[in-house]
Amino acid sequence: MPIRVTVWGEFRHEKRSEEVHKLYPHGMHEAIASFLRKNKDLKVRTATLDQPDNGLTDAVLADTDVLTWWGHLAHSDVQDLICERVVRRVQKGMGFIVLHSGHFSKPFRRLMGTSCDLKWRLGEHKEIVWITKPGHPIAAGLADHFIIPREEMYGEHFDIPEPMETVFISTFTPGGECCRSGVTYTRGAGKIFYFRPGHETYPTYYDPNVQRVITNAVRWAAPTPNSHEQTYGNRLEGWLDQPQPTNNQSRKFPKPTSRKSTTKSK
Amino acid sequence: MPIRVTVWGEFRHEKRSEEVHKLYPHGMHEAIASFLRKNKDLKVRTATLDQPDNGLTDAVLADTDVLTWWGHLAHSDVQDLICERVVRRVQKGMGFIVLHSGHFSKPFRRLMGTSCDLKWRLGEHKEIVWITKPGHPIAAGLADHFIIPREEMYGEHFDIPEPMETVFISTFTPGGECCRSGVTYTRGAGKIFYFRPGHETYPTYYDPNVQRVITNAVRWAAPTPNSHEQTYGNRLEGWLDQPQPTNNQSRKFPKPTSRKSTTKSK
Amino acid sequence: MPIRVTVWGEFRHEKRSEEVHKLYPHGMHEAIASFLRKNKDLKVRTATLDQPDNGLTDAVLADTDVLTWWGHLAHSDVQDLICERVVRRVQKGMGFIVLHSGHFSKPFRRLMGTSCDLKWRLGEHKEIVWITKPGHPIAAGLADHFIIPREEMYGEHFDIPEPMETVFISTFTPGGECCRSGVTYTRGAGKIFYFRPGHETYPTYYDPNVQRVITNAVRWAAPTPNSHEQTYGNRLEGWLDQPQPTNNQSRKFPKPTSRKSTTKSK
Amino acid sequence: MPIRVTVWGEFRHEKRSEEVHKLYPHGMHEAIASFLRKNKDLKVRTATLDQPDNGLTDAVLADTDVLTWWGHLAHSDVQDLICERVVRRVQKGMGFIVLHSGHFSKPFRRLMGTSCDLKWRLGEHKEIVWITKPGHPIAAGLADHFIIPREEMYGEHFDIPEPMETVFISTFTPGGECCRSGVTYTRGAGKIFYFRPGHETYPTYYDPNVQRVITNAVRWAAPTPNSHEQTYGNRLEGWLDQPQPTNNQSRKFPKPTSRKSTTKSK
Repeated sequence: MPIRVTVWGEFRHEKRSEEVHKLYPHGMHEAIASFLRKNKDLKVRTATLDQPDNGLTDAVLADTDVLTWWGHLAHSDVQDLICERVVRRVQKGMGFIVLHSGHFSKPFRRLMGTSCDLKWRLGEHKEIVWITKPGHPIAAGLADHFIIPREEMYGEHFDIPEPMETVFISTFTPGGECCRSGVTYTRGAGKIFYFRPGHETYPTYYDPNVQRVITNAVRWAAPTPNSHEQTYGNRLEGWLDQPQPTNNQSRKFPKPTSRKSTTKSK
Repeated sequence: MPIRVTVWGEFRHEKRSEEVHKLYPHGMHEAIASFLRKNKDLKVRTATLDQPDNGLTDAVLADTDVLTWWGHLAHSDVQDLICERVVRRVQKGMGFIVLHSGHFSKPFRRLMGTSCDLKWRLGEHKEIVWITKPGHPIAAGLADHFIIPREEMYGEHFDIPEPMETVFISTFTPGGECCRSGVTYTRGAGKIFYFRPGHETYPTYYDPNVQRVITNAVRWAAPTPNSHEQTYGNRLEGWLDQPQPTNNQSRKFPKPTSRKSTTKSK
Repeated sequence: MPIRVTVWGEFRHEKRSEEVHKLYPHGMHEAIASFLRKNKDLKVRTATLDQPDNGLTDAVLADTDVLTWWGHLAHSDVQDLICERVVRRVQKGMGFIVLHSGHFSKPFRRLMGTSCDLKWRLGEHKEIVWITKPGHPIAAGLADHFIIPREEMYGEHFDIPEPMETVFISTFTPGGECCRSGVTYTRGAGKIFYFRPGHETYPTYYDPNVQRVITNAVRWAAPTPNSHEQTYGNRLEGWLDQPQPTNNQSRKFPKPTSRKSTTKSK
Repeated sequence: MPIRVTVWGEFRHEKRSEEVHKLYPHGMHEAIASFLRKNKDLKVRTATLDQPDNGLTDAVLADTDVLTWWGHLAHSDVQDLICERVVRRVQKGMGFIVLHSGHFSKPFRRLMGTSCDLKWRLGEHKEIVWITKPGHPIAAGLADHFIIPREEMYGEHFDIPEPMETVFISTFTPGGECCRSGVTYTRGAGKIFYFRPGHETYPTYYDPNVQRVITNAVRWAAPTPNSHEQTYGNRLEGWLDQPQPTNNQSRKFPKPTSRKSTTKSK
């Protein structure tokens, strides 16, 4: 079964700026979707901000294993309801790949619980991406570092929670800044990867190393097949003497009454 | 300088239930504040839900180093604005001690990015609290375990992010469930500790081991003295050749233009 | 390409104790190898302590993607040289699954840097294994918990470093103890999983849930395909202007002079 | 009660090289001890490689709360026995601050379980130390970064386990490399901090920011007062009905028979 990927793009810069339009004539999301589509194990669709429900209806999300996210100008135009929908799907197991300026997106900030703020500087910098977790699936096929010839600078302090794994750290020249540029988290059953590169005025998403990282990350973040949804709430005594749930049969396990988040009256 | 502690209590059960009122005649928050006040290094105030601004005005939070939180019935009555205020103060360095049913409170869920759901069962259980991080400041003075004679059961899966440190795991008898019952996180400059015990119908907050843990946690979570607020946003070239910030002088460091979260127009 | 698994067994209890011999007539390692062999993606061999080089020659290890380890009586009979060989292979990317009393084995202790000590009690206990990381590949196919009807007790404090991920916590009845029973680490490029169950006098390795966990863990711990060995040591100036290593070509990257661990003379 | 600090120095470069001798006429360890001694809460001694027992007798270690370590040329001259002694004391709660080339020291590698290898280049670099964990006690008094005017380069990949906390990341100019330069771990009850700067031919240990970090780290790594040693080994049934250990009385708790690491015969 292929991994169902939804590539979400804000798709505003591309309509407003000739420079960006020239670089990404069909939008950055289409550039990303294009290289992902070359992999037979991935089934790729796109979605954009100005579609109904910001492109992320319940049906689309239910049909998504991994969501990638690029946004920048219009974070506040993402509806709160849609943000919550994304957050809940991640908690239930959907992979979430956050790209570049998506660090400031609503769903990423909601999942992190921090400001996700950082330092930045426009202009051409060499970005040197150092592999700090060799052997990690997201670093597959990469040597000890790779270089993106032209990129915007992002610098520490990057206000994120302590990562589960720091896969990449980038340095910038000229400058001297650095940034944790590839970091993993889990929230509930969902895996999250933030990947820094991707300024809209540079051809970053045509870079073969960047493409490789995003492709690796999609596979890494895909939900575990045969994963069981957890049961929460009230649990009566006597369960220990009842027939136990076994491999792959837990869906038949009697679900306890669900606990309501704010009205638990005992 | 003493650590300024604000003990926040929902203070509803105590007014509604004779059983709880008898146990905690001045409210659970006063019971908690009382044992904290015995320590000369702590300066303790209380705040409750039904006060203006839910007891947490900007002035109160600005004057708080560590906030402890007990809520249960009325999580949804905490104003969103107040929740955000607490979250932002934590991110700026305020310690946050979340007690028992506070796992479902708005600010804890906001800071965790997960559902914070769990299994539970009313009724008398022995709670055995195992120390899983000996040497941790929050476990100071404790042997390898302690027992709370009567408590409600909370059981795994407890839907929290992977903790930075798991200081305690509790088991419950009768039952056979377990729960990560003492876990630490950081969010921004703030330290967070969740501590499980504290059901309103049991005298848990009179238990000397529980008192010890909460006292230890308050000291652990206190903000680092002489901590500098970070600068974020646009950073011009040339900074490397300018005079550098030095010890304790960084506040004079020219603050770059702040980056607005959703309107970065470059 | 299949995952090459070596199932290492101490294979002493089975020769000395009639009770263990009856349960595992061909050794515990053969019981483990048998259920793994049912998976077409795994290519399984066994190795035992009393073979030359403790069964782990350079050739065997070079041909191993994932090593599982069960030892108990004779940890000290594993040669230090062989221990170092295993440790180095793990650091280079070999997966390492440590079972039950293997917590006290030489290579596990070397990789952890802690005493790996714990509490224990012989005799029949129900072991309830709680899933604390739903969505993790090692928990695939499992509901919220499973029960092993008869097991030895292991209890906290279990002296291991803070795990990267705590996938399972077990409780024991009778008793009331608990133990982090499924924990992950990385060391260098290698993934490590410790899994608690498996006392020699119980039929634990015939339990379908246990088999499922070990099978999952083998797949999870398999080295990342197309992973590059890192370069270390002296790095001359000017590298930034030289042709860069690219995808899958890094092996051609000129290797800097290796740094000797204790004789760096500059 | 003051924190008892032992500053360990290899003290070989200073005798062999005129350049180093000029910079550190009494040895690097004396330079470090000197600035620590300015703090009334610290009681500081030094110890060096060429003393009996490498300066670290049982008596010295028993009288040490925090050990700092600088070694480079002569890692292999540290006796294995002394290394094990240090490792065991750390596991029992002694803080351990590893400086610069100490990344390759025997006790640090033993505690980490990885090769601890990295890239390096002699010659003058500006080292920019970025604070990546604001609010951490080790970063107290520091702004968002500080600069060491002249240092050796260390670069990623630095082969350490995923840190508990990454407090600093350094970048180097000229160069473009980066290195996780301030990282924390725990092993048993002991806290460990690795801090990168400190090449012998530069006046790094006279730098006020470096002095501040090491002073902060010593305080952070000090053992938790009133911390109980854990009990391990066989645990008889019935403990749950016996009198429980209470605050500060656990030392009277009957110690179960100790489990021998390799000869558990049941």
